Amino acid sequence: MTDRHPELEALDALLEHTWAELLSRPVAANFLTSPASADRRMLALYLIQAYHYASHTSRNQAAVGVSMRTSNVHYLKYVYEHALEEVGHELMALHDLRALGVAIEDPARDMPAPLPETEVLIAYLYYVANFGNPVQRLGYSYWAESAYGVGQSFLDGITARMNLGREQLTFFHVHADIDAKHANDVEKALLKACETPADWKAVRRAAETSLRLNWAMIEAEFAEWEKLEAGEPSDYTLLNQLSQEVSSS
Amino acid sequence: MTDRHPELEALDALLEHTWAELLSRPVAANFLTSPASADRRMLALYLIQAYHYASHTSRNQAAVGVSMRTSNVHYLKYVYEHALEEVGHELMALHDLRALGVAIEDPARDMPAPLPETEVLIAYLYYVANFGNPVQRLGYSYWAESAYGVGQSFLDGITARMNLGREQLTFFHVHADIDAKHANDVEKALLKACETPADWKAVRRAAETSLRLNWAMIEAEFAEWEKLEAGEPSDYTLLNQLSQEVSSS
Amino acid sequence: MTDRHPELEALDALLEHTWAELLSRPVAANFLTSPASADRRMLALYLIQAYHYASHTSRNQAAVGVSMRTSNVHYLKYVYEHALEEVGHELMALHDLRALGVAIEDPARDMPAPLPETEVLIAYLYYVANFGNPVQRLGYSYWAESAYGVGQSFLDGITARMNLGREQLTFFHVHADIDAKHANDVEKALLKACETPADWKAVRRAAETSLRLNWAMIEAEFAEWEKLEAGEPSDYTLLNQLSQEVSSS
Amino acid sequence: MTDRHPELEALDALLEHTWAELLSRPVAANFLTSPASADRRMLALYLIQAYHYASHTSRNQAAVGVSMRTSNVHYLKYVYEHALEEVGHELMALHDLRALGVAIEDPARDMPAPLPETEVLIAYLYYVANFGNPVQRLGYSYWAESAYGVGQSFLDGITARMNLGREQLTFFHVHADIDAKHANDVEKALLKACETPADWKAVRRAAETSLRLNWAMIEAEFAEWEKLEAGEPSDYTLLNQLSQEVSSS
Repeated sequence: MTDRHPELEALDALLEHTWAELLSRPVAANFLTSPASADRRMLALYLIQAYHYASHTSRNQAAVGVSMRTSNVHYLKYVYEHALEEVGHELMALHDLRALGVAIEDPARDMPAPLPETEVLIAYLYYVANFGNPVQRLGYSYWAESAYGVGQSFLDGITARMNLGREQLTFFHVHADIDAKHANDVEKALLKACETPADWKAVRRAAETSLRLNWAMIEAEFAEWEKLEAGEPSDYTLLNQLSQEVSSS
Repeated sequence: MTDRHPELEALDALLEHTWAELLSRPVAANFLTSPASADRRMLALYLIQAYHYASHTSRNQAAVGVSMRTSNVHYLKYVYEHALEEVGHELMALHDLRALGVAIEDPARDMPAPLPETEVLIAYLYYVANFGNPVQRLGYSYWAESAYGVGQSFLDGITARMNLGREQLTFFHVHADIDAKHANDVEKALLKACETPADWKAVRRAAETSLRLNWAMIEAEFAEWEKLEAGEPSDYTLLNQLSQEVSSS
Repeated sequence: MTDRHPELEALDALLEHTWAELLSRPVAANFLTSPASADRRMLALYLIQAYHYASHTSRNQAAVGVSMRTSNVHYLKYVYEHALEEVGHELMALHDLRALGVAIEDPARDMPAPLPETEVLIAYLYYVANFGNPVQRLGYSYWAESAYGVGQSFLDGITARMNLGREQLTFFHVHADIDAKHANDVEKALLKACETPADWKAVRRAAETSLRLNWAMIEAEFAEWEKLEAGEPSDYTLLNQLSQEVSSS
Repeated sequence: MTDRHPELEALDALLEHTWAELLSRPVAANFLTSPASADRRMLALYLIQAYHYASHTSRNQAAVGVSMRTSNVHYLKYVYEHALEEVGHELMALHDLRALGVAIEDPARDMPAPLPETEVLIAYLYYVANFGNPVQRLGYSYWAESAYGVGQSFLDGITARMNLGREQLTFFHVHADIDAKHANDVEKALLKACETPADWKAVRRAAETSLRLNWAMIEAEFAEWEKLEAGEPSDYTLLNQLSQEVSSS
């Protein structure tokens, strides 16, 4: 027996379906048996992208409030609370990159550029914040705050295969912890902020689209790892030094 | 004996000097003996402007974070915390207007437009958020959070002369209470965020300019009251009904 | 013998390579023998997306100038000239939709929503305008202004198969005409605005990324057509009426 | 006999009344007999402000188009045409400053900061572009394009008293020339873009407010000149060198 809101159930069903499709594709399905999941360059590729999109997360969250022309006190409070909590999360990605041994002294100078797919994800989150239905960004938060559940088996796998400790994976572990609380907040915010079927439809669209863009980013990280592995030109060749350190350990 | 930071002392001195000049002008100097300070239309004129600028305060505060291209975790946290705390303050002004008897059912439809001087103040706060030194907006917060101290004698005067209770002046009393806490926050934020003489200079400039624009708004409210008193055309003639109610009470 | 700038040659080579890959995929390779290329619903799906992104083109072009913090007179002139020339191009798409028989009286009310892939393209063009290297948006203009060359065989094919006249395809024909002039402008603007290898790299990245997003939009139009053909749920079922009209002609 | 639109007549009457009031104040009324009108420091103070606000003019003009959520092809074309024509006008102010002998090699480094009143004017023009009725910015253009008429007697006066040639006053002379054309454009744009009394009211408000802010800037230039004359601290003391050159000529 459940009294879950039917619109939340519809959103859950959509995301479950989308995740299932994405996880059945080769990159996910074969990941834990691929050499990539034992290669710290793969993790570094992920963390570099995380550094970039996390640098924008609190900004595009706050932009929802700046762009809103109507007043919805409860939702605006959620927006700024959430923007506040996301400040500086890129520094966890930076910490983990350094813990892996990536030589980044000054990120403004040394951090490799994001992949195009990372920029597309960032771009979409600003668009979602600045245009259209202001509640739609909750669709992104909704799956993002619970994604570390989906990612747990990957995280366990790479932790074991790359021989890493919790202190080298703060970006994941801290998010997994705080996101338990956040997921609950997002659900409450959705139930308060969504007043019409059009609101829920906008949320579903932004949820599915941002999840697909996020996954496209992850597949692009894998493709970039394949380039490194094949010795092809890449903006990330500085990670090859890392790879050698790992294999010598 | 004091260990107050010399830049804070310079900022205090500038604001003290500016306040002294503004308060010596006729509108302030004669206010408590003017019929305006016993006329609820004057208070309503103030609250209508407060409704308008308060509708933008959390937005132009959050805009500082959205516009910043560099990362300063401590300052960004201050920015979003403060944006969060300012959400919905326009509703206190709306409450007080209704408590005074101003007939505003739906603010989007019934609230009179702001005075031009109010729009200029709002405009400047967005400019300060979007252009130039990102710490400069603290100059506005610095004086604004302590202004209710300066305003206390005016508040006491109109409370007595207009025969009002605390429940009709929530905008002032709630701000006076929370601003004690905020003033302290702003000072800490200033000391952390300002790293160079240029930062402090930008803060001083934004502080003085926004204080002067704020005062120009108040003087414009008085000028509009004079129009109402003289029976001249005004966008605020709906307040004349209020005046009659007051005089009949 | 040629004196073409080596950076332009590199950009051309990248785009040629990218186009070749995209056009070799099933949607393009099989299009002219697919029933889709004889089905006006397919054209309408394209034009609805064109309506949406063209509504943003002059805005995200002008946004480059609004966001620039440095002054580059020649480039700013290009930006506003180009924004000017793009104003209202969505009306050609609207005209053609109506000429096809799609019942859109008031676009604000009757125009179907864009596909998610269309929003992602729009989002990316705003991002390119507002963040990063301000010259990078020329990468989009560069391929977009010459794309009607690539599209000519498709245009000829659908014109014949759908039995359409030039007056029902103004969006394509007008663009093909004015883009001859524009392509030349973009090339000149690139040669003036790009001063460093980093500028050219940013242009190449934005060119390839926006071309891929544009193509993802076209493939999504095809996938939506397949849904209509299969009688599946779609936001575009109003086009089925159109299809019947066509088959009866 | 006249067929001038009554709303244009009302706008003209408002501006005539406002100009009359501003020009009757001491700064204007006494200017041509004040030593300031023979002192190149005064002109330089004006040109430095002109450099700053002109750097924003085409941007805040284009921002009207970027911010508009509705489509008005004629008005959008006016917006971008006008943005285009305003590009780079700050360079005329820079040219004239150099012709006067002000040592500005790299403006980003050497140009003195704007006065606060100049920033307030710039801030208001962005606000007018980004908030409220999108046609309201025409109110600024309307008086700005014809202001060189009002300024002609001042221009003649200072040209004679400062012993300047046309080639040192390009900012004024070029504007006077092109503004004859522009004033006509603005009038046409107003008549097309304003459809309701509320549109005209928004235009009148923005016209009067921006004119008053512009004049406040000019009075602030005069106050700054008085500081220089009195040997008081100022951000513009580099102009004192200029004054000596003038008096020695």
